[in-house]
Amino acid sequence: MKHETRDRAIKRIRIRFRETSDWLGRFAHLLDEFGARLGEMKTVHIGKNIRIRDVDVHARSEEVFDRFCDALRRMEGVDLLDVTDVVLEMHRGGKIEIGARVKVESADDLAVVYTPGVASLCNKIKANPELAFDFTCIQNSVAIVTNGTAILGLGDIGPVAGMPVMEGKALLFRLLADVNGIPVLIDSKDPEVVIRTVQAIAPTFGAIKLEDIAAPECFDIETRLTDLLDIPVVHDDQHGTAVVVLAALLNIAKNTYINLKRNPVGIVGLGAAGNGIFNLLRSYGIQEIYGADINPIMADRFREQGGIPADLPGVMQKSKIVIATTGVPGLIRPEMVQPRQVILALSNPNPEIEPDDALAAGALYAIDGKSVNNACAFPGLFKGALLARARRVNNAMKIAAANTIAEHAMPGDLVPNILDRSVHEAVAQAVKAIALETGVVRFRNVVTAG
Amino acid sequence: MKHETRDRAIKRIRIRFRETSDWLGRFAHLLDEFGARLGEMKTVHIGKNIRIRDVDVHARSEEVFDRFCDALRRMEGVDLLDVTDVVLEMHRGGKIEIGARVKVESADDLAVVYTPGVASLCNKIKANPELAFDFTCIQNSVAIVTNGTAILGLGDIGPVAGMPVMEGKALLFRLLADVNGIPVLIDSKDPEVVIRTVQAIAPTFGAIKLEDIAAPECFDIETRLTDLLDIPVVHDDQHGTAVVVLAALLNIAKNTYINLKRNPVGIVGLGAAGNGIFNLLRSYGIQEIYGADINPIMADRFREQGGIPADLPGVMQKSKIVIATTGVPGLIRPEMVQPRQVILALSNPNPEIEPDDALAAGALYAIDGKSVNNACAFPGLFKGALLARARRVNNAMKIAAANTIAEHAMPGDLVPNILDRSVHEAVAQAVKAIALETGVVRFRNVVTAG
Repeated sequence: MKHETRDRAIKRIRIRFRETSDWLGRFAHLLDEFGARLGEMKTVHIGKNIRIRDVDVHARSEEVFDRFCDALRRMEGVDLLDVTDVVLEMHRGGKIEIGARVKVESADDLAVVYTPGVASLCNKIKANPELAFDFTCIQNSVAIVTNGTAILGLGDIGPVAGMPVMEGKALLFRLLADVNGIPVLIDSKDPEVVIRTVQAIAPTFGAIKLEDIAAPECFDIETRLTDLLDIPVVHDDQHGTAVVVLAALLNIAKNTYINLKRNPVGIVGLGAAGNGIFNLLRSYGIQEIYGADINPIMADRFREQGGIPADLPGVMQKSKIVIATTGVPGLIRPEMVQPRQVILALSNPNPEIEPDDALAAGALYAIDGKSVNNACAFPGLFKGALLARARRVNNAMKIAAANTIAEHAMPGDLVPNILDRSVHEAVAQAVKAIALETGVVRFRNVVTAG
Repeated sequence: MKHETRDRAIKRIRIRFRETSDWLGRFAHLLDEFGARLGEMKTVHIGKNIRIRDVDVHARSEEVFDRFCDALRRMEGVDLLDVTDVVLEMHRGGKIEIGARVKVESADDLAVVYTPGVASLCNKIKANPELAFDFTCIQNSVAIVTNGTAILGLGDIGPVAGMPVMEGKALLFRLLADVNGIPVLIDSKDPEVVIRTVQAIAPTFGAIKLEDIAAPECFDIETRLTDLLDIPVVHDDQHGTAVVVLAALLNIAKNTYINLKRNPVGIVGLGAAGNGIFNLLRSYGIQEIYGADINPIMADRFREQGGIPADLPGVMQKSKIVIATTGVPGLIRPEMVQPRQVILALSNPNPEIEPDDALAAGALYAIDGKSVNNACAFPGLFKGALLARARRVNNAMKIAAANTIAEHAMPGDLVPNILDRSVHEAVAQAVKAIALETGVVRFRNVVTAG
């Protein structure tokens, strides 16, 4: 699904206000007037009759935020002292670093982790390559590979401008699953360069996560690398999204008493996300899947893989469940909505149809992209594959991940809080178990691993 | 210079001994008998009349260590309870990891470091690529690239078996200079593959450190990548070694009152290390440099670059200072040594001539490789280049590094303790200053940087 395309502004303002004033009510009113949202708030100073607070404000754009500040400056009893860009401050120096897992406090330590001691381990690995699983960081490391051609919903902004997103994924890998996510920026739009580069550096990693690479090139890159390498190659925009969507559908089906496998599903938009969702739903057992895309290459691809191409009105008319990932806000008009239809309009920040409008037009259930966070899936999915020493991430592993994610959602929610580490651990264990069961693992002694 | 080629064994033994026994003297005698060395020692339990200690033992080989243990088992009043491989234990799970530089404790934090907040930074970097220096980890990251063809003195053992060495370098980058060293294992011996792979991933890094790549391929790889990229590309086996050797020579010159620039120098072995030393000494101002190598390709290369090729006896006869990096123990026979000659026999673990033998044969000054640790140079050299946002590491920067290293050595020593972080910081500042002075920097606003 597409993400935020415009610059949402997240700023920290430092304000001084007279303690007796009714500042909070007026401040709330001002936020409301500009469609802005309150983030964190912290008192930094208490003086005689005054108080200074740092307040985070989320606005729709920099321009809206600037107008908000102008209005704030005119407010009685409140002084705007300072504005900082929270996003820039959080990113200063980067979000990730290479950390040490061992202490080196003496020349003796150095002799163990560096020359001459390290040579004995090198020789052992040469004699028995499986030792690299246990005694290097390789098996816990995932390359986060992009060429910058489809960063979030921002499009082809190049790999360097995409680095903050790659660091964000690496950060989540660390915080949620204790996996090393290592950004790799590739300076080429040519799929051949991407393929041969990843192939060349593959021994460094236990898995490859392709990230924000444009369709249709992403399909060929993933397929060919999967053939070339004996470690998992997963294009997250396809499969991570698909896992989370399937998890959400499992909970929607439970809440609405819809039989997921026996109802027609329609997919609007057959890019990376739509294609990944299609493949996983088919593998899950949904027989009748319609699909629409304005690009005939995508539609042909869809047909070749067993989908039923249609136009948008056709998909809307024939499907009990509609999943839209087009990036086109308002694409689905209320009159297209069928009675008691389930609609997932996933494009961010603005969906193909607002859930309220879909419900008003007769839908049984409707959500937008904010309800299904992509980051629910990838940390546990990769972690499980790494623990199993898997050579592939197959559909059975993805379905196991989706089931586990669905089970961990709070009652009424579709997916769990992504900051809950125990969810990712449960996903990893489920994925690992299925990997071992379906035999997609490298080397023989793997059953005893991690 | 070559490093340890055999498996030195570093083991931790857990021993129980009767407190009244004269165990320590007998233990010391046993160590001596097997040529083993005592490492760390720690008491783990004190009981009635007994004491249990963990003792690290460094032996020449696994076989010697095993015989040592057999003898220990026969020792009166001492029980050998357990043996662990310290090297393996220190390496379990790898020595490095990707760490988080920011906290993510709430959904609000997540919105800043991930979508939707991150999009604003991506757009800013797209509009102004220089922002990537400050707001991503790129400018503090060095790729540690190897294809595994010349790992330590072990030779062509492949990139995966070389990973513990690459992790070791990354660990030192972190501990000594707060730089992100990121191992990149390249699955090819073909220089073209190495070159195009590094070229493709170069946007990810602020510098490239080529590591343990065999000569003569390493020369072409470094030269061509330097032409292709606008970030420093440094083959450490050449230039890191050269910087440390120059630092050692500066202190030797001071101690022996030899005028470094006005005396002939001889280099025995013109591989990566010999070639790097030659180029730096020439740039430093040494006019008359002789060189010998059994490989005529290396000798021709040496001549083309302005060196004077000779055979080993010729080099020995004509040079005031001789630097040997051949990996051939005992190559220099005592009768070759000239009166009052300075000899650096740097091959590890066994030098071309033992310092004592060289001194007995009339040398003025003689050292082996243990006195000049390679790791003195690279952390500060790269850090300085990164701080300056340098596009090259030129000879002036290397000479600045060598001068700073030399200045920080304790009186009588040739180079400082590599675990002293202040040395690496001083080297970094010296290198940065020269980079700015000699104008090898990217972008215009660099003078204001870090």
